[in-house]
Amino acid sequence: MSENCLFCGIVAGTIPSTQVASTDRAIAFMDINPATAGHLLVVPRAHSTDLREADAEDLTAATLLAQSLVGLVIERLDADGANLLSCIGSAAWQSVFHTHLHVIPRYKDDPLQLPWHPTSGDMDAIQATAAKLL
Amino acid sequence: MSENCLFCGIVAGTIPSTQVASTDRAIAFMDINPATAGHLLVVPRAHSTDLREADAEDLTAATLLAQSLVGLVIERLDADGANLLSCIGSAAWQSVFHTHLHVIPRYKDDPLQLPWHPTSGDMDAIQATAAKLL
Repeated sequence: MSENCLFCGIVAGTIPSTQVASTDRAIAFMDINPATAGHLLVVPRAHSTDLREADAEDLTAATLLAQSLVGLVIERLDADGANLLSCIGSAAWQSVFHTHLHVIPRYKDDPLQLPWHPTSGDMDAIQATAAKLL
Repeated sequence: MSENCLFCGIVAGTIPSTQVASTDRAIAFMDINPATAGHLLVVPRAHSTDLREADAEDLTAATLLAQSLVGLVIERLDADGANLLSCIGSAAWQSVFHTHLHVIPRYKDDPLQLPWHPTSGDMDAIQATAAKLL
């Protein structure tokens, strides 16, 4: 655990999140600034700054959890696809320096471009979306 | 192997590519329509349509190979970061239906937006970049 790390706080439960899945090595929770409806973050429980530094077993666990969530968002949210994205370094749009994988549900003809401009989501809508994934 | 699959052809060697790394389960080669200099694709050798369908061991192998290549492009190409991206479904910009991970080197203040508009790269520049990764 790294002090002052937002995602370490979420893993520890000292910072609230809407968690939708977890394993012994990784957790998944709703992004509160969603790029599209159902945008999830998957993070290894152990701290690492970015994907380069993640332990192989942690990265594997996060990837396999993300894989299952890609299937879940397509099934439960009627998404037409999804992007898996990781940003390594601020030049690559990383803003929280704890390794994470974005699972971004995609909808036919949605207007998504990356980088998206994070803005606070509607928390009621986020909770309702999370409920479909649980 | 799936007939008429571009990446199966590259894995089999019947379609040319500039390969920069390989393991028993995955290979990495230069994207010929690069989003940025050094853009790589990592594919499991075994065919699957997209990440949802990839065998867990194949996906793990591809992810760990991509992880090592993220480090390599930052070190050898003086990149400032990188994005790892997978597109699942045409709604998510997938255009070749064989599971693949993009490793996109990023450079401070580069203008990259996604989706990028694939255009043929300069093959001499691509080969010169590949040489730095070998």
